[in-house]
Amino acid sequence: MRLLILGGDGYLGWPTALRFSARGHEVSVVDNFVRRRWVESVGSNSLTPIRTLEERIAAWREATGREIQSFVGSVEEGGFLDRVVAESRPEVVIHYGQQASAPYSMASREQAVETQYGNVIGNLNLLFAIRDHVPECHLVKLGTMGEYGQPDIDIEEGYIRIEHKGRSDTLPFPKLPASLYHCSKVHDSTNIHFACRTWGLRATDLNQGVVYGIETDETATDERLITRFDYDEVFGTVLNRFCLQAVIGHPLTVYGSGGQTRGFLNIRDTLNCVELAATNPAGAGEFRVFNQFTEQFSVIDLAHLVKFSAEHLGYSVEIQHCENPRVEKEEHYYNAVHTKLLDLGLEPTLLGEELVESIVHAIERFKGNAIESAIDPQTRWNPTGTAKTPAGRA
Amino acid sequence: MRLLILGGDGYLGWPTALRFSARGHEVSVVDNFVRRRWVESVGSNSLTPIRTLEERIAAWREATGREIQSFVGSVEEGGFLDRVVAESRPEVVIHYGQQASAPYSMASREQAVETQYGNVIGNLNLLFAIRDHVPECHLVKLGTMGEYGQPDIDIEEGYIRIEHKGRSDTLPFPKLPASLYHCSKVHDSTNIHFACRTWGLRATDLNQGVVYGIETDETATDERLITRFDYDEVFGTVLNRFCLQAVIGHPLTVYGSGGQTRGFLNIRDTLNCVELAATNPAGAGEFRVFNQFTEQFSVIDLAHLVKFSAEHLGYSVEIQHCENPRVEKEEHYYNAVHTKLLDLGLEPTLLGEELVESIVHAIERFKGNAIESAIDPQTRWNPTGTAKTPAGRA
Repeated sequence: MRLLILGGDGYLGWPTALRFSARGHEVSVVDNFVRRRWVESVGSNSLTPIRTLEERIAAWREATGREIQSFVGSVEEGGFLDRVVAESRPEVVIHYGQQASAPYSMASREQAVETQYGNVIGNLNLLFAIRDHVPECHLVKLGTMGEYGQPDIDIEEGYIRIEHKGRSDTLPFPKLPASLYHCSKVHDSTNIHFACRTWGLRATDLNQGVVYGIETDETATDERLITRFDYDEVFGTVLNRFCLQAVIGHPLTVYGSGGQTRGFLNIRDTLNCVELAATNPAGAGEFRVFNQFTEQFSVIDLAHLVKFSAEHLGYSVEIQHCENPRVEKEEHYYNAVHTKLLDLGLEPTLLGEELVESIVHAIERFKGNAIESAIDPQTRWNPTGTAKTPAGRA
Repeated sequence: MRLLILGGDGYLGWPTALRFSARGHEVSVVDNFVRRRWVESVGSNSLTPIRTLEERIAAWREATGREIQSFVGSVEEGGFLDRVVAESRPEVVIHYGQQASAPYSMASREQAVETQYGNVIGNLNLLFAIRDHVPECHLVKLGTMGEYGQPDIDIEEGYIRIEHKGRSDTLPFPKLPASLYHCSKVHDSTNIHFACRTWGLRATDLNQGVVYGIETDETATDERLITRFDYDEVFGTVLNRFCLQAVIGHPLTVYGSGGQTRGFLNIRDTLNCVELAATNPAGAGEFRVFNQFTEQFSVIDLAHLVKFSAEHLGYSVEIQHCENPRVEKEEHYYNAVHTKLLDLGLEPTLLGEELVESIVHAIERFKGNAIESAIDPQTRWNPTGTAKTPAGRA
């Protein structure tokens, strides 16, 4: 297959490029390296010492003889993206090329605008480029479970059958996104769904849970191929941050009570899921939604698991409940369906003490790079304090 | 009250400004006149000869002694909008300042991006400005019934109680927006709802039907106060277009069978609805949604009503079924609840032969201004023809 991967320099985009290249597919990547600049702008870094995209591609060529083509530019530049799609003529586009941090989107008006502009307009440009050049192409778009928020009913995979006043219809599952970043992903889903209904495009929206882990089969083969690893309060996801905190002797920062429950998955499973989606394309006009995670955990349960595992390795670990900087329910119902990827053959990598220990071991090599001042929560969802608790909905 | 009206130079914005000013409120308006340029760019004009904003404000001052303050600039410029809100300190913001044409948004990638960028980012800037300067202010936002699309169940006002697998919750009503413009309004609703939940803002989303009519009590008092009237295929709404077509002897352009059913309301009722919303504000943290229309009609029923009424005035009227340039269902279930504004006291102006005749009479004065080449449908929803009919949803 010919694949185009947007955001191919990122935490997931780079390992995804390697995975498809290793399978013998023809892979092109697009990136403008803005993620590297964003992380620097918040006073942080990648724990892992990542090479430039050019160096990584050269190392992959040297190690495997395989070629990855790169296009340097921004998805929000419509003319650029149009030319890339016209030239690379992908059969599958995998779109990771977005601002993916909730705290980043909440820090200021400027960052909120940057997030929604880049994500929504970049995705809109992509829809037009696919329509105009490769209308049969399958778009695999990374969404997030955070689009759904915390409804008081079971979360279905994208759609829900509603019986209402004696009639019924299957409609998009209602969304209660958790940040302005999550709002941007809802906007994307709305636009993609429209493009499928109206232009007959085919798309799969992967509403992904929180990803953890540091290595994949391909990145582990050569240190020059390692992917980025974020641990700070802005770009680090919770389990990765906890593992780093355990290693450097920083308390595990649990926001509020830690009763917040979410779906999680290992980075290796992300690649498996994306591969399953790409090799089993959506039909023409179909907007398919998969909930992409393997297990649900509460934040406090994860903290205890990391504490237990790291203490087994000789670390002394403290759990610290911080004032929750986000506006979210800390005790809530949460049950999200996630069977479609299992039906396609996903075999989950389940989280346990052994897996946490392997992540901790991988982190140990790079712990000297950690910038401790970037770890504690600073970005408040409601800095002006108008509302102290989640407000009523209706 | 101190009111700030965004889009105060427009079809509805200008009469709204006059209405609140006439009631003795302190009114400021924002506009960048881009609507005038857009209409010019598609080879059309306002049938009514509208004065500049400056001239209109001077005429209003001369006629009534009342002052309307104006700010010239774009809502998508965050710094500008922030300064306007900080300076005018509104108790109510009425936000009409958006690109409001579905065909315009569908004509090209550039126009789609312009629509979603201006609408979504402008509205996002507004949410931050309200949060930072006037968090108690009531945002009255113009949405559209087209956000809901054509579901096969009754359309509720913004929310729906869903019973699912033995649990239940009241959640945002699922949306199937009808164009990329309508998508932008869905995005706005998602962002505003988030701002209410997270920052405790108060907002009313007016999901308005298709507006018709040419005069309000205030604009009719002086020809210099007249509001714009669009009749072309891009900016003209269906009933206004039909009335103009009848007057100039152009066939009434019905798209497809004309079975498409929508909610409609008179421009005078728009002002009454906005006034009811503004004088009965949403609570802190409340995101309130009203379905703002008074009657449902199919397009073909409207064509027959206009034909009947205009022929009664001596016109000879032909109805022409054009190939539908849009991707939409032409025969479908449609029943939308619209009781919340009635509960607040709205007394609908119902459409009938007499009302159509009065619109036709008002149009007659300006019929010489019509540009006939701008009337027939040209903007196709699916110019590349990938999908010929609305595709499946799930």
